[in-house]
Amino acid sequence: MGRRLADSSTRARLAAPDEGIGADELALATRNHGLPLEALRYDVTPPGLHYVLTHYDIPYVASNAPWQLKIGGRVRRRLRLDVPTLRAFAQVTTRVTLECAGNGRALLSPRPVSQPWLVEAVGTADWTGVPLKLLLAEAGVESDAVDVVFTGADHGVERGVEQDYQRALPVDVAMGCESEVLVAYEMNGAPLPPQHGYPIRLIVPGWYGMAHVKWLREITVIDQRFTGFQQAVNYRMRQDSGEAGEPVTRIVPRALLVPPGFPDFMSRSRVVRPGRVPLEGRAWSGKAPLARVEVSTDAGHSWHDAELDPDQGRRWAWRRWCFHWTATPGDYLLSARATDADGNTQPLDQPWNRGGFAVNLVQRVPVLCLEADE
Amino acid sequence: MGRRLADSSTRARLAAPDEGIGADELALATRNHGLPLEALRYDVTPPGLHYVLTHYDIPYVASNAPWQLKIGGRVRRRLRLDVPTLRAFAQVTTRVTLECAGNGRALLSPRPVSQPWLVEAVGTADWTGVPLKLLLAEAGVESDAVDVVFTGADHGVERGVEQDYQRALPVDVAMGCESEVLVAYEMNGAPLPPQHGYPIRLIVPGWYGMAHVKWLREITVIDQRFTGFQQAVNYRMRQDSGEAGEPVTRIVPRALLVPPGFPDFMSRSRVVRPGRVPLEGRAWSGKAPLARVEVSTDAGHSWHDAELDPDQGRRWAWRRWCFHWTATPGDYLLSARATDADGNTQPLDQPWNRGGFAVNLVQRVPVLCLEADE
Repeated sequence: MGRRLADSSTRARLAAPDEGIGADELALATRNHGLPLEALRYDVTPPGLHYVLTHYDIPYVASNAPWQLKIGGRVRRRLRLDVPTLRAFAQVTTRVTLECAGNGRALLSPRPVSQPWLVEAVGTADWTGVPLKLLLAEAGVESDAVDVVFTGADHGVERGVEQDYQRALPVDVAMGCESEVLVAYEMNGAPLPPQHGYPIRLIVPGWYGMAHVKWLREITVIDQRFTGFQQAVNYRMRQDSGEAGEPVTRIVPRALLVPPGFPDFMSRSRVVRPGRVPLEGRAWSGKAPLARVEVSTDAGHSWHDAELDPDQGRRWAWRRWCFHWTATPGDYLLSARATDADGNTQPLDQPWNRGGFAVNLVQRVPVLCLEADE
Repeated sequence: MGRRLADSSTRARLAAPDEGIGADELALATRNHGLPLEALRYDVTPPGLHYVLTHYDIPYVASNAPWQLKIGGRVRRRLRLDVPTLRAFAQVTTRVTLECAGNGRALLSPRPVSQPWLVEAVGTADWTGVPLKLLLAEAGVESDAVDVVFTGADHGVERGVEQDYQRALPVDVAMGCESEVLVAYEMNGAPLPPQHGYPIRLIVPGWYGMAHVKWLREITVIDQRFTGFQQAVNYRMRQDSGEAGEPVTRIVPRALLVPPGFPDFMSRSRVVRPGRVPLEGRAWSGKAPLARVEVSTDAGHSWHDAELDPDQGRRWAWRRWCFHWTATPGDYLLSARATDADGNTQPLDQPWNRGGFAVNLVQRVPVLCLEADE
């Protein structure tokens, strides 16, 4: 009697109180990786420092191997497009800040057992590709279209369900009613790295990472709501496992600091010397344009407006902010808080959900300011 | 009364029995990252998939900002070399497999609390630069030289000691008696990425990663043994904290498998279907040329020789191996084991040391082979 697939797959669970990170979470943390926070200094994240989250394996695709994107379902003309054909369409480049929907998960209590992000699952890149609406227009979407399903080449099992990674967008979102959705073939002016979806991926500016399907091989227009695992089971905001829950969609506001001074290797706490300590960081929101960033140097008791760099028309990219702090000897907790034009902001006390999604608790950076002579 | 630097810095410690990975280890695991094991398929690791371990912060160096490498100490001529000058020297490209000295640490029991690697802290790149011996010849090393000290621009505190990252090589190793040591300015034909040492770093083929000083800004020839923190305190093989310990130097043998089939998202255990399952992976040793790779599909009870690809004269790069496995339904633990020409091999039962260095326990990959009809 062989064991069945469903028996071998890990169920969703919550960590016990004070349960440390387990071997399974560690195995995810060592292969997926975040942005080292000092790299928030770059407008565009250098290759290799952008966060990466892969559900299954990174598919092996040899350089310039043939690749076909199929477009089908409720369309008038089925299409099969190779990469040179995609490159022949009108080309758009957009700077986009991408964040994992699970960013901040490991800060929750109880902790949902999954990829254990702290705050660093973010990055910004210039993505170049063809607007999805041009491809859908070429195929001719039928009037009864409801959802557009995107299928990647990554294959695995999750909570007992064997699957290709699949996600859908409502047809109006796919057509660009919120932001220009791209079928992208370049990241920062070069072919996509393997871990970012080589040769092609979806880019949905403003949405969490789960929507940006990598290693894209099929687009299927359907006349009903998509009920695949990553849409109806995963990526839902729930208190209890029995609930249908609300779908995770657009990125809630967040500000992060470039940690000032220098770190202790093990604790990552920061050390500065007395005097002017320039603070800077990045802030973003996928919900509405960013309106304000505030800084606190006293663990969130008082807040001061930071100076925001102009957005330069880059609605979907993070914005730099800065603040001048004069440090005197002592212990500090530094924080920054972003608020968008719709009034969405970051909590000091994080509401909990059992998937650990859309967590945007205010970051707290412990800093020791030494005596002047030390 | 301010707190002192020494009070704010974390001490070395061992985890308690069954203590999960803590917040400090997780903060390291989310910023440093390993090679996703499926990327063992590539001869040369694609940028961004190579392992990264940074003790402190990645220094921010703007593209083409001025950078000077100083060479001094027990030399006849002090030198200050900028990057264009380094590029004017004879240029060498070497394919090198780099591994972190702490790879495997999190598999030890008790676990030394530090960067919690499993098996994935490895990668292979083509490094281009000037042989260090040419620079030392230009400077003229005095006859009383003992060690050559390399100083990076990365700055932090570690166990209470504020420091720039510094490591030394014995002068004969620096002069290339074991392998050609490079001052490298290119990785895979492009300028170094920030996290790999932009603009210049040391490459010491065959040695663990701690020797390959990144963001290299100073080379100092001294007439005694170097006793800096990363040489005399860290990176020593010890049973007790009071011992001087043996220095960590060259890479012990290791073989890793490309995990076959497809993964379960959370457990990372693998699923295959019955029939021929090609197994492949990479193996390397910095101690002596690789001699043999064996594979076990029964948890290490029996071993079979794998087929090794030719080394193509690339002594310091990993070598591909392959093995044909015919899977039948059931549960398996797959392993591979490397042995070098000096008879160094991998243990099934890992000797312990309190830094968690040079751990090369045989990898065990759990695999479920489904029934044919599932």
